[in-house]
Amino acid sequence: MMLPAQVRIVEMGPRDGLQNEAVAVPVAVKLDLIDALAEAGLRSIEVGSFVSPRWVPQMAGTAEVLAGLRRRPGVAYSVLVPNLTGLEAAMAAGAREVAVFGAASESFSRANINCSVAESLERFAPVVARALAAGLRVRGYVSCVLGCPYEGEVAPEAVRRVAVALAGMGCHEVSLGDTIGTGTPLKARRMVEAVARDVPVERLALHFHDTYGQALANILACLELGVAVVDSAVAGLGGCPYAKGAAGNVATEDVVYMLDGMGVATGVDLRLLADAGNLITRELGRGPASRVARALLAGGQLPGKA
Amino acid sequence: MMLPAQVRIVEMGPRDGLQNEAVAVPVAVKLDLIDALAEAGLRSIEVGSFVSPRWVPQMAGTAEVLAGLRRRPGVAYSVLVPNLTGLEAAMAAGAREVAVFGAASESFSRANINCSVAESLERFAPVVARALAAGLRVRGYVSCVLGCPYEGEVAPEAVRRVAVALAGMGCHEVSLGDTIGTGTPLKARRMVEAVARDVPVERLALHFHDTYGQALANILACLELGVAVVDSAVAGLGGCPYAKGAAGNVATEDVVYMLDGMGVATGVDLRLLADAGNLITRELGRGPASRVARALLAGGQLPGKA
Repeated sequence: MMLPAQVRIVEMGPRDGLQNEAVAVPVAVKLDLIDALAEAGLRSIEVGSFVSPRWVPQMAGTAEVLAGLRRRPGVAYSVLVPNLTGLEAAMAAGAREVAVFGAASESFSRANINCSVAESLERFAPVVARALAAGLRVRGYVSCVLGCPYEGEVAPEAVRRVAVALAGMGCHEVSLGDTIGTGTPLKARRMVEAVARDVPVERLALHFHDTYGQALANILACLELGVAVVDSAVAGLGGCPYAKGAAGNVATEDVVYMLDGMGVATGVDLRLLADAGNLITRELGRGPASRVARALLAGGQLPGKA
Repeated sequence: MMLPAQVRIVEMGPRDGLQNEAVAVPVAVKLDLIDALAEAGLRSIEVGSFVSPRWVPQMAGTAEVLAGLRRRPGVAYSVLVPNLTGLEAAMAAGAREVAVFGAASESFSRANINCSVAESLERFAPVVARALAAGLRVRGYVSCVLGCPYEGEVAPEAVRRVAVALAGMGCHEVSLGDTIGTGTPLKARRMVEAVARDVPVERLALHFHDTYGQALANILACLELGVAVVDSAVAGLGGCPYAKGAAGNVATEDVVYMLDGMGVATGVDLRLLADAGNLITRELGRGPASRVARALLAGGQLPGKA
């Protein structure tokens, strides 16, 4: 099995996780969570989003989150920006890394941001250009890479086109999102192979949701292609807006556990990570969706590393 | 990715699942569950265990289960037998396929059945011989193949020895059990590779628990070695006696979903399977542990097959 020697985890809990939780979390708790994640060893943390709080009330206060960060050396704190207004607000609040997004599915793009995929990319081009000109790093997301809640199957070619566009604008990394978690390993691998024909695997990240329990298997299948960046959310925060009550982001604990067990370095301490997850799930009034976190809470053990 | 064209699922719900549930399920409900599983297309179902009901009250009534089976052509209904007494009772009740078990860990064997691994194999040899002489098929289980609740890591060599012994006695198949679910894909693969040096992969089955969320990834890693039999439990029935509240057997729905998505034939209808899971989780008064089942209950969709 060919695996990367190390994997960088991009922690999605404070953004993609919390934006899909029913409870809106106060800024002070978000700051505690972010610091606990950094303490656990995470070096890339998405901390919020400058979407309208009318649409996503859970992301209100992201400017205060950025302003209040106890920044640690070597940790990148990114925010999602939907447009130039959001970018300007993010920069005013001190953002040094931002992320933009496009969908691989026309219907999803229409439903989510009310424009075609091509239009969304045209809108993002000046956002990326402005951010790069200001010296920021920009990450690109592609959603619905393995399925769309409206269209079903999504062609790898559609994913490749959007990924190429985002990389071409200057996104340093393109994160491939299985937004509804319907993907399976062989399709995940074929999708990454299609994208990697034009965007080097070194610039790709896997962003898989665990709605159907497939995320770890999908990640494993794609690590073997050389992808070495994985997005995940502590405690499996978030959910699926298209299947209320179902699981959301793959849990960071579960990803780190798998990588630890295979001797793939992440720099993350699993115990401290589980502590960060307990911090936020207590606030949300529920247990973690992470199976590793649940096993640890139940008295389960952590095996030695490979 | 090299994958088998088809995989046989051995359904563990009525035995390994229910024996680890807090609620003891009446025989009539077990019979309904077993029939619903057969209706969904499962062709190998473990329906109970002839252990003492003093030790495992959930398995009381297995003789009545065997007697009451609405047997369908082509479906194998097996029972676990711990000793000659259990075998005789199983045969008296009409069992045509039985299963015996050994542990790859000395401490686990001592704690579980109060004898050494070698002694347990000596005790099982006449059980297997008697069953074979009576024309029954015998399956062998090895537990703790990727970790022991008392010893931690387990050497692949220890697994190989027990598997070889069970195969040598005449077990037609040896099922490799990650009893506490601590395994990860690379270790799972190395373990199977060690065993397959002496027992052909065609005679091996994967029996992985999902306590740490790793089961599907571990299965995927081992399917690539050519193993084509997977044990699982509908709805993820069961739990981990060594981490109360944690997940148990990998859910049959999640396994079938992954295999469907990769174009690997199982003969199982996922909708009917989820119905079987709903039947038993209603009886248990809780939701399914299967992520696929939960997504479907939440209104999630099933993608087309590969």
